[in-house]
Amino acid sequence: MEWHIIGIAASFLTTFGFVPQIIKMRRTKSAKDVSLATLLQFGAGAILWALYGVYLGDLIIITANIIASITIFAAIALCYHYNRKHGLSSR
Amino acid sequence: MEWHIIGIAASFLTTFGFVPQIIKMRRTKSAKDVSLATLLQFGAGAILWALYGVYLGDLIIITANIIASITIFAAIALCYHYNRKHGLSSR
Repeated sequence: MEWHIIGIAASFLTTFGFVPQIIKMRRTKSAKDVSLATLLQFGAGAILWALYGVYLGDLIIITANIIASITIFAAIALCYHYNRKHGLSSR
Repeated sequence: MEWHIIGIAASFLTTFGFVPQIIKMRRTKSAKDVSLATLLQFGAGAILWALYGVYLGDLIIITANIIASITIFAAIALCYHYNRKHGLSSR
């Protein structure tokens, strides 16, 4: 049973991992130092992890990574928006 | 068999997810917009995912998350270093 608590805690931390980054970008209205490549890599990774969760039949992995990809795509949109606004490259 | 390829691709993308961020911080010598909270959350999350991988008996999840925590702690160190250098808070 306690293993499931570890899985749920792990999924909670990484699922909402980019939430502080989203809050920071919105607060400072800047994403100059944020790597868009990192966000894109995590976005693609989360989608593949969700698929791998289907193979494992593990609902925690599936749910965590579907929600994660939604927050990551929000972060990608914000990062792209602020860098475009400031005429910066997003690499 | 192809499921394992998806698992390996997923683990590769997220394991090395912060590598572009590390490269960007080193290149620009700045981490002003990078959320230290996001990095700490992923660091703690990766350690718990590795433990959950032990429970699942899944070597891909274990290995991916051990390597991920190493790269995340490198990113944390760099983020802290550049923000300290520039007298910034790291939230």
